[in-house]
Amino acid sequence: MIEKLLKNFVGLKKNSIAIAGAHDDSVLSAVKQALELNIAEFFLIGDAKKISAIAKEIGLDAKKFEVFDESCDVSSAKTAVKLVKEGKASALMKGKVETSTILKAVLDKDCGLRGSRKLSHLAMFFVPTYHKPLFMTDAALNINPNFDDKKDIILNAVSAVSSLGIKLPKVALICAKEHVDEKMPVTLEYEKFVKMNESKEIDGCIIGGPFALDNAVSPEAAKTKGINHPVAGDADIIFCPEIISANVLYKSLTIFSKAHVGGVIIGANAPIILTSRADSAENKLISIALGGSLGGNKL
Amino acid sequence: MIEKLLKNFVGLKKNSIAIAGAHDDSVLSAVKQALELNIAEFFLIGDAKKISAIAKEIGLDAKKFEVFDESCDVSSAKTAVKLVKEGKASALMKGKVETSTILKAVLDKDCGLRGSRKLSHLAMFFVPTYHKPLFMTDAALNINPNFDDKKDIILNAVSAVSSLGIKLPKVALICAKEHVDEKMPVTLEYEKFVKMNESKEIDGCIIGGPFALDNAVSPEAAKTKGINHPVAGDADIIFCPEIISANVLYKSLTIFSKAHVGGVIIGANAPIILTSRADSAENKLISIALGGSLGGNKL
Repeated sequence: MIEKLLKNFVGLKKNSIAIAGAHDDSVLSAVKQALELNIAEFFLIGDAKKISAIAKEIGLDAKKFEVFDESCDVSSAKTAVKLVKEGKASALMKGKVETSTILKAVLDKDCGLRGSRKLSHLAMFFVPTYHKPLFMTDAALNINPNFDDKKDIILNAVSAVSSLGIKLPKVALICAKEHVDEKMPVTLEYEKFVKMNESKEIDGCIIGGPFALDNAVSPEAAKTKGINHPVAGDADIIFCPEIISANVLYKSLTIFSKAHVGGVIIGANAPIILTSRADSAENKLISIALGGSLGGNKL
Repeated sequence: MIEKLLKNFVGLKKNSIAIAGAHDDSVLSAVKQALELNIAEFFLIGDAKKISAIAKEIGLDAKKFEVFDESCDVSSAKTAVKLVKEGKASALMKGKVETSTILKAVLDKDCGLRGSRKLSHLAMFFVPTYHKPLFMTDAALNINPNFDDKKDIILNAVSAVSSLGIKLPKVALICAKEHVDEKMPVTLEYEKFVKMNESKEIDGCIIGGPFALDNAVSPEAAKTKGINHPVAGDADIIFCPEIISANVLYKSLTIFSKAHVGGVIIGANAPIILTSRADSAENKLISIALGGSLGGNKL
């Protein structure tokens, strides 16, 4: 199963990932699987003794990775960021450190990896009932983004998805209407994004909307509503206007539709791979493959 | 398949439904199926000639229903409402008239069916991957409900679901967090609803939240997050805070999870069954069975 999913990343770059807080059995099990599947290489930053003990326990060969001994979470995150800045690693991964700690190191003005855009979360789903990978943003980071934030979130997603080899990704701007309506103010913003795409101010993608979700992912639903647009029924990227609708969609896809999913934070000069203990082994590997493939690209 | 779904309504009342604008082949086909399955009786209001012609064409026996000839949509809606007010019918159904036309007749201060609460939409899903029917509100009517509106929407749903025989329905208040957080203001409202439930100001249900969707419908996800609450993993009613997240969930369940769904507007003195041409035959019948079962109850 996972091998089939990982075929989506074949031909893409295999990168080195710097893990902050690698002294965790769940993280190191994912590292072991990723090494076996040959999808990435790793720098492990954290408590070296613990890393060594866990590696021994799970049968992870110590010769296959380099360890940087850091017992404190903050230094662990800083060292991981430094490895990326020096060009040794090209993606970050959160181990047993708080997300806020790693984001602080990334956003540090002097030593960080801050880019010109706002950070955002991108999820990549393999939905059994959809005909291709489906990307969605932002279910985890930006609670209630304003117009400029939304623009950054869209640009982040388009850069990332394009760099995975999906040319001119189709972006669907989602709400609960298929036309501009002042009673739903986000439709006015969506109209502007569509115009900015038509005038090539936002380029490298096809933007459509406002759409209800069904118009974006079901050709039949789009046809029934009389919507004739290249994005309708064939979206690559689902853009949700705020975190609640995005999070509801994320959970509906994983729980009810049994989708596999990987997630990364993008918008900085390197992707940040986020996995949690609760993630399945498959989902962890998708996150690693996704982040690894995105690493080293201009996002 | 539909027979199995309709078993959920067995033992509930079989009611008379007044259809405004019944001169429509899609509506009359649903009527024919509903009569064959013996789930409701009908008063057909609309263009009598057209009704007669379509009935003949689809093999619907004219002796099985009563027709009220009204060629204008407004009078059609008014007559349907009058039949409910007189106690002849106990539910309304939208045929070939605008939703706004039928709502205007329902909300008319003198001749309507206005109750003390705001109207709201309730969807009933049969999700293949969930262990019981799942209700959700409000994906269609209230765009951005305030606190009092939310209270009405919750009370409407609890009354309706209880009257279907589900005692003490479990209501999950959904957002993207599992704890109260000022950065997501709806969590403060949710805290109040939970307290109003504990003090029995909102009674006849168990309210839990704030929850992310997975905590509400997956016992495993709830356990992983350390949530121990009777609603967690076993929700009957999903409450979404505004229309976009609700609509996204509705479309995700129908398109990606292949759920069957029925829908009604509740909060007036009779339910209003909404079906659209695009609905599958199964979904139309679920709406009719749902509205028919709710009719005549104090909602």
